Amino acid sequence: MKISYANRGMDLESEINDTNHYYLDIDKAVVYKKPTPITISKVNYKENRINEGYFRTPSTTDYNGLYKGYYIDFEAKETVNKTSFPLQNIHPHQIEHLKRVVKHGGIGFLIIRFKTINETYYLDANELIKFIKGNTAKSIPIDYFRANGHIIKDKFQPRVDYLSIVDLYIGVKNEKKI
Amino acid sequence: MKISYANRGMDLESEINDTNHYYLDIDKAVVYKKPTPITISKVNYKENRINEGYFRTPSTTDYNGLYKGYYIDFEAKETVNKTSFPLQNIHPHQIEHLKRVVKHGGIGFLIIRFKTINETYYLDANELIKFIKGNTAKSIPIDYFRANGHIIKDKFQPRVDYLSIVDLYIGVKNEKKI
Repeated sequence: MKISYANRGMDLESEINDTNHYYLDIDKAVVYKKPTPITISKVNYKENRINEGYFRTPSTTDYNGLYKGYYIDFEAKETVNKTSFPLQNIHPHQIEHLKRVVKHGGIGFLIIRFKTINETYYLDANELIKFIKGNTAKSIPIDYFRANGHIIKDKFQPRVDYLSIVDLYIGVKNEKKI
Repeated sequence: MKISYANRGMDLESEINDTNHYYLDIDKAVVYKKPTPITISKVNYKENRINEGYFRTPSTTDYNGLYKGYYIDFEAKETVNKTSFPLQNIHPHQIEHLKRVVKHGGIGFLIIRFKTINETYYLDANELIKFIKGNTAKSIPIDYFRANGHIIKDKFQPRVDYLSIVDLYIGVKNEKKI
């Protein structure tokens, strides 16, 4: 039995935060996770303390930022499933948001980790939109990621080097401009 | 005495949120205010309730998004001062963030409202950086906004039509590309 220690004790969100921090440190890109949206109902401003609040459903994705002059925007999710990614993990308005990103000239995508088999995929928003359009399935098969996405290999630093895949899409965008 | 009813009961943040909502509705741009960053210390997940949390200092600006393929990023502030804008209203790391935005090819700016005289200015991040570089002053005189910024006129809809100014900067960017 082979045991992977690569991501031991670290979830995808922490790894992406580390990655973004690294990108910022080496001055490669400016990408942040948005704070969790909450509604604050009781607050003590004197002590800077929130005494009651509620989690809100996010209207956009979790991450956005700037890379090589491009607006980038993505959502990251883990699943314990081995063969497909359940679409219920992505809110419908997050999908609407990614559609808008694509329409207005940004680069949108998903980062999906199948944690049981330790495979992480980049799926461009255009491929996500195509899948949903022609399909009523409630989950995206892993084969769809393999055929239409890109695997993001584990690295020591940065942990989840998604910009190496974004580079491919920037290449395509620039070819279209010519 | 002339009384302005234009912005009665509405602060700049609400007006910008309305404006962004309007831009989204007419499919002109995708810009959101980031949620307030907080550290959650006590939470009841079952009831979706935060029982204790603390406000964190934001590491970036409040607004960012996508317009005509460009990454845009800004901070908005009101002041009751009539002759200058106190720089203590902008955190040093917000200024660092705007510098990064400019460096990586985004469009960064401030929206500053002098509410006592009801004048709202757009100041490009480059002009802000220039001011800070050559200056130890703790506030930016309103004349600097008049000379190096652009007034954003009150409108019924959208309330704070800042994209009309962004268009000028996009024009300059495109000229540089040629």
